[in-house]
Amino acid sequence: MKATVIVELKPSVLDPQGKAIQHSLSSLGFAGVEDVRVGKLFRLTLAESEQTGEGIENTIRQMCERLLANTVVENFSYTIEE
Amino acid sequence: MKATVIVELKPSVLDPQGKAIQHSLSSLGFAGVEDVRVGKLFRLTLAESEQTGEGIENTIRQMCERLLANTVVENFSYTIEE
Repeated sequence: MKATVIVELKPSVLDPQGKAIQHSLSSLGFAGVEDVRVGKLFRLTLAESEQTGEGIENTIRQMCERLLANTVVENFSYTIEE
Repeated sequence: MKATVIVELKPSVLDPQGKAIQHSLSSLGFAGVEDVRVGKLFRLTLAESEQTGEGIENTIRQMCERLLANTVVENFSYTIEE
């Protein structure tokens, strides 16, 4: 089973890396880039288990809260496939 | 207009960061995590322009090839909204 987790800075948190990329794009001649925000993406391959869909969602939410995301400054979202 | 770009290591390229996360998840007691791959996600806000859909796609592809991705070891994909 595959899960994709996206971790992004909360909208209220400054993103200097995104700003740097925005300026670099301008310098390269790409006009009209108003904002860039950078996030992380995790593709997890999970062993098949007897967990129900809800159980799996719970597990992934815990993984995010305990390791993948810093919930003080980051939001996370996830999708589960198969 | 908003575009989301995902940049990931090619499947044939080792991902030590993903491996470290996989081991950390195991250490935290999450069983059955078979693989973790890490990627980057860019949320671009673009000014409205007279470019056609195809023109915009071309622009984003160029941004990826020139700045956002290292196409020797990374693949990119993108979605365009609005």
